[in-house]
Amino acid sequence: MASLQDIGMSAAVNIITALIFLMVFAMLRLQPFNDRVYFPKWYLKGIRSSPTHSGNIMRKFVNLDCRTYLRFLNWMPAALRMPEPELIDHAGLDSSVYVRIYLLGLKIFAPITVLAFGILVPVNWTGGTLEKNKDLTFSDLDKLSISNIELGSQRFWAHVGMAYVFTFWTYYVLYMEYKKIQSMRLHFLATAGRRPDHFTVLVRNVPPDPDESVSEHVEHFFSVNHHDHYLTHQVVYNTNELAKLVENRKSLENWFVYYENKSIRNPNKRPTTKTGLFGILGKTVDAIDYYKAEIEKLRKEEAAERERIISDPAALMPVAFVSFKSRWGAAVCAQTQQSSNPTLWLTDWAPEPRDVYWSNLSIPFVELTIRRFLMAVALFFLTFFFMIPIAFVQSLANIEGIEKVMPFLRPVMEWELTKSFIQGILPGIALKIFLILLPTILMTMSKIEGYISLSSLDRRSASKYYLFILVNVFLGSVITGTAFQQLDSFLHQSADAIPKTVGMSIPMKATFFITYIMVDGWASVAAEILRLKPLIVFHLKNTFIVKTDQDREQAMDPGCLEFASSEPRIQLYFLLGFVYFVVAPIFLPFLLVFFGLAYVVFRHQIINVYNQQYESAAAFWPDVVKRVIIAMIISQLLLMGLMSTKDGSLTIPILVLPLLTIWFHIYCKTRFEPAFVKFPLQDAMVKDTLERATEPLLNLRAYLQDAYVHPDFHREDIERPLAIDEEENNLLVPTKRTSYRSTPKDSKYNSEIGSDCDV
Amino acid sequence: MASLQDIGMSAAVNIITALIFLMVFAMLRLQPFNDRVYFPKWYLKGIRSSPTHSGNIMRKFVNLDCRTYLRFLNWMPAALRMPEPELIDHAGLDSSVYVRIYLLGLKIFAPITVLAFGILVPVNWTGGTLEKNKDLTFSDLDKLSISNIELGSQRFWAHVGMAYVFTFWTYYVLYMEYKKIQSMRLHFLATAGRRPDHFTVLVRNVPPDPDESVSEHVEHFFSVNHHDHYLTHQVVYNTNELAKLVENRKSLENWFVYYENKSIRNPNKRPTTKTGLFGILGKTVDAIDYYKAEIEKLRKEEAAERERIISDPAALMPVAFVSFKSRWGAAVCAQTQQSSNPTLWLTDWAPEPRDVYWSNLSIPFVELTIRRFLMAVALFFLTFFFMIPIAFVQSLANIEGIEKVMPFLRPVMEWELTKSFIQGILPGIALKIFLILLPTILMTMSKIEGYISLSSLDRRSASKYYLFILVNVFLGSVITGTAFQQLDSFLHQSADAIPKTVGMSIPMKATFFITYIMVDGWASVAAEILRLKPLIVFHLKNTFIVKTDQDREQAMDPGCLEFASSEPRIQLYFLLGFVYFVVAPIFLPFLLVFFGLAYVVFRHQIINVYNQQYESAAAFWPDVVKRVIIAMIISQLLLMGLMSTKDGSLTIPILVLPLLTIWFHIYCKTRFEPAFVKFPLQDAMVKDTLERATEPLLNLRAYLQDAYVHPDFHREDIERPLAIDEEENNLLVPTKRTSYRSTPKDSKYNSEIGSDCDV
Repeated sequence: MASLQDIGMSAAVNIITALIFLMVFAMLRLQPFNDRVYFPKWYLKGIRSSPTHSGNIMRKFVNLDCRTYLRFLNWMPAALRMPEPELIDHAGLDSSVYVRIYLLGLKIFAPITVLAFGILVPVNWTGGTLEKNKDLTFSDLDKLSISNIELGSQRFWAHVGMAYVFTFWTYYVLYMEYKKIQSMRLHFLATAGRRPDHFTVLVRNVPPDPDESVSEHVEHFFSVNHHDHYLTHQVVYNTNELAKLVENRKSLENWFVYYENKSIRNPNKRPTTKTGLFGILGKTVDAIDYYKAEIEKLRKEEAAERERIISDPAALMPVAFVSFKSRWGAAVCAQTQQSSNPTLWLTDWAPEPRDVYWSNLSIPFVELTIRRFLMAVALFFLTFFFMIPIAFVQSLANIEGIEKVMPFLRPVMEWELTKSFIQGILPGIALKIFLILLPTILMTMSKIEGYISLSSLDRRSASKYYLFILVNVFLGSVITGTAFQQLDSFLHQSADAIPKTVGMSIPMKATFFITYIMVDGWASVAAEILRLKPLIVFHLKNTFIVKTDQDREQAMDPGCLEFASSEPRIQLYFLLGFVYFVVAPIFLPFLLVFFGLAYVVFRHQIINVYNQQYESAAAFWPDVVKRVIIAMIISQLLLMGLMSTKDGSLTIPILVLPLLTIWFHIYCKTRFEPAFVKFPLQDAMVKDTLERATEPLLNLRAYLQDAYVHPDFHREDIERPLAIDEEENNLLVPTKRTSYRSTPKDSKYNSEIGSDCDV
Repeated sequence: MASLQDIGMSAAVNIITALIFLMVFAMLRLQPFNDRVYFPKWYLKGIRSSPTHSGNIMRKFVNLDCRTYLRFLNWMPAALRMPEPELIDHAGLDSSVYVRIYLLGLKIFAPITVLAFGILVPVNWTGGTLEKNKDLTFSDLDKLSISNIELGSQRFWAHVGMAYVFTFWTYYVLYMEYKKIQSMRLHFLATAGRRPDHFTVLVRNVPPDPDESVSEHVEHFFSVNHHDHYLTHQVVYNTNELAKLVENRKSLENWFVYYENKSIRNPNKRPTTKTGLFGILGKTVDAIDYYKAEIEKLRKEEAAERERIISDPAALMPVAFVSFKSRWGAAVCAQTQQSSNPTLWLTDWAPEPRDVYWSNLSIPFVELTIRRFLMAVALFFLTFFFMIPIAFVQSLANIEGIEKVMPFLRPVMEWELTKSFIQGILPGIALKIFLILLPTILMTMSKIEGYISLSSLDRRSASKYYLFILVNVFLGSVITGTAFQQLDSFLHQSADAIPKTVGMSIPMKATFFITYIMVDGWASVAAEILRLKPLIVFHLKNTFIVKTDQDREQAMDPGCLEFASSEPRIQLYFLLGFVYFVVAPIFLPFLLVFFGLAYVVFRHQIINVYNQQYESAAAFWPDVVKRVIIAMIISQLLLMGLMSTKDGSLTIPILVLPLLTIWFHIYCKTRFEPAFVKFPLQDAMVKDTLERATEPLLNLRAYLQDAYVHPDFHREDIERPLAIDEEENNLLVPTKRTSYRSTPKDSKYNSEIGSDCDV
């Protein structure tokens, strides 16, 4: 292990780097012309408006008030000041619970750090084994770790005892936090305003019927089987073609705006473009006219496509959003099995409208199981064999290979500087590019698996990323070797040797992970708050493109919480904390700094910056707890492996810990998880009753009418599908609603009293 | 491997044994005085009555019609003749599906046997490796097995190809059978007559309420949250004390009958007994008077206890059977979560009344998770370490030990015969007693785990027993060693070495398992049909106790299908079949004989003998398929291990098989399993609608009133709990039903029209 001085040096460098980031941020955020980079959330909410409208011209861009610079760190208390209920209201429950993950880290590790330094550090320090062996080189840091204790010493009982204390403390914190977040979720759901997804169930795999359209079939099925509760439904069209057209048009519009700006800045010269590939080949034409015509053409095609979709029964997907008269009815339908064939009429809670991932809605059941199976196999290969294609690319990207393919580069290649650059950097770049692309690859895999909401896609990708980090970052660093080599050695090692091998190399890697947490943890959190990329992009756009306030609105890139990639990274720190709290307590303060800093920074970001994409009401929390518990079990097995090399009799008491942890997991899962996947009938009934009392005149049908329309269908484009209207006058299905509406006179009367008959 | 002659010899002995059993059975079953031993099912159904009432005295006991003896095997076609729908009607779906497990074995293995003998046996036979090695001793049997093929030979591709063919054939058969049994179950449920469990949900963990009794609380909760559907409910009393009294009384009544018979046979001498321990110590009294008085005393105590239970609120358990007005309402309640705390108001389908395991109803949630965790740990120790206490008992049960404890036995002990008996048999007996007790031990463990129906207890015990057989019979025989030694060696072997070790010893054990299947399979099936124990017990009882027809009815012991202990044994044969079909196809014909014989015998037994304890509508089938699939995966891994020692390049194609099997399992599970655990709303609605049309006057409330009363409460003892009557007049809960019943006039009118208001 490195000496205390080495670590201190490294810490100093990283602390200074982080402080520089924070100070630069503190300066930049005070400048009014950066306001939209650092406070976009408030602009999106419409609460804040550009400060450029008042004051003198200089004030618009630069803050000249010196006093504000003196309080350059006051964003930190400001970020902590907003009380949690207000935070939930402002940034959503998802974001608020996300920052509580960092708080969970603080709650678990702060008391553990104190205890570890109070008890384990003295026990290790006075162990005196390293001093006895004169031929060993060791540092003060090693004396703080478990390595300083003699084999078979009674002092190890202190470590075992502390492992128990820490484990039970973690159980306690996890349990209380789970309970708290469960109640936050239930409270959030109970107090949330009316939302379409409260009343709506997503029905998939509607079986084909020779006599009826999908829409009629759905209507009949639910009118019969939920006859007191069924209200209406919304069919889903296959809009993949339309989506392509819309995407095309948007890209053309972008170009149109680009050329228009060009022509405004340079009014004498009309910009031109070529009609062929990427504007490089083909005939030269006037750019603005060309794009205008193209956009117009696409608009017409879109309209035709919309017409076709609505009238073509083949464009109807075997999927529908079915809405009920009450939350109770929707809760019942979402939680029960409809048909004796469990692969038909699959019902699930409808995700929020903005959370729906439309392309996956119509995957049939058999295909779904095959897709998931293939993706599981693919994930296995990606995790363990990803080095193989990268090594292949690296072998191609050498000087001889490039010279062969592009001989005209030969003179450049011969320079000493390029040579060393290519040999030194290129192989690393291939890996770096892969790692940058990894979250996207994993997200694509999750999409192939067929999940139907953005939130579940995020959760699945996070699980995959966690596996990757666990194998390639944690195990890869501990045993040093590619995942494939590890897999190979694990297959050829006995089950009791694996924790031993890994456990023994754990103490040796403490310095590495301390450095890792400073570089990857501290610095990246500090960089997160600086938002360098959005800052540069915004100012570039602001300079070259923005003309109106609306443009400026679009130039803002608030970003959002990247749950799929950032949560697994936090989990790595939890794992490191659990692994090192007994072995090398010196690791813990560095971890605490990370959790503390990250908590403040992300709280600031969700208040001021990030835009919420969807609201899943903290549905990801069970996953978070599951991964914390996996980390606990891994750390306990590794501790057992390490201890078995020190004193065999300690194995049994430590073996109890993973068993207890598994039980704790099962208990928590059954105790809390249903609150995150189901919606209790009692709560549904309470909300229904309350709503019926407070808003007796609510027209729920109108409220739900267009809630689940594909975003590519504009509101005005939608004509009510014909089938439903027919149904309305069909007396075969004598629901209350139908009899009211069946005569024109009634319907007139209806509209006069506010059509409360649906409620 | 043994020679063909050895196996032939062994087979001959076993075939003759089995034939003798079958012939003895064929003789005995024709004797009228054995009629109640071999056809009790028909007596229980009331279709058959004793043949002793007509004909001459000899005919009553012995069948003198010679022609019937000539057709002594005609029970076999008779057993097969009953068509399946009639069988389901006669013996229940559980039994009918149970015998289909044997049919499944035939369907899977019959074509496989033909193929294996057509392709693999010639390939092995002409391999010629064994003949080349002059120094090896081998037999014809070995030449039929995979051992006869040279290392690295291309012939192994035939085995790999056959493994694929067999695997896909098994998938096909399993899939079709699962589909068939799913449709049988759905049809059974759809056509079954009205049953209380269709309308009833078991509610557990009713939270305590300071102001209301359990009964009131349940009524209020469901009146509010299922207000259109709730009908009535039945509270559950803690009857453990009462059950003890009833049990006591029954045992005393037995003694009373015994002494009464004694006195009738010997009218001059009044029998006496002693009042102390086991009738050995204490005062001598007249037995009949004594027992009559004791029974009377207990009857009074029982009545008092019943009074106490009904009036004492502490005797009410936080559990209730809640009944609904329709199957739809019950299906909804059973499948949904009621309260935001998922550990309260737990709803489940109520088991059939005779299937309820009453003692487990009131276990609180936390205790349940702890119990299950402890039992999982206990099962692990039982499976791997059961030899330790047995070895301890064995070490005690030696001659010196016995002489020390009971010195008066010394002279007997010195005899050569006793000596050799004790030394030879006693150690074996300890193990044998353990194995006989094992199903009871496992059932007790399942009861501790807190399952609430007899059928689920059976299913859980079967899982446990399967684990035990897998580890101790299969692995124990293959690697020869106690489970503990295996566990130890598995822990110290690498993951890829384990299938290799086991796989390599598989071909060597073929003879052993052929003998095993003949002794344990053939002979035990033949013994099953002879029913030696019930035969002897019945005739003993008939001679000494039976006086009236009612006594004779009670002396019959029809027995029942012992699912928990016999199904895992069948699964062992499936496993052996999968393991050996590639390695040593000679094993397969023996397996086929077992499945065929067992199918006929058990079909005969369920038609003529066994009494059905409960009807779970084949709820055990998913477990059966799960275990078949586990067996497939084990066999594929072992084949991979074996092949990797023969030719490394074959490992990869075989590795695909377990992956495919896992996918197949997941597919089948999602496709079919919901039909075995849930009840689709569509089917419920169809049955409700049908019933409402055909029986509009049905008084469902009266039908369900006493359906779920504890069996120790006699019907006449039940007074309707006070709380419900109060509720009836309580206008705070204005359900339709209440308003109907609230005035005396209405209720009179009600009874006149047949009180159809509840439906």
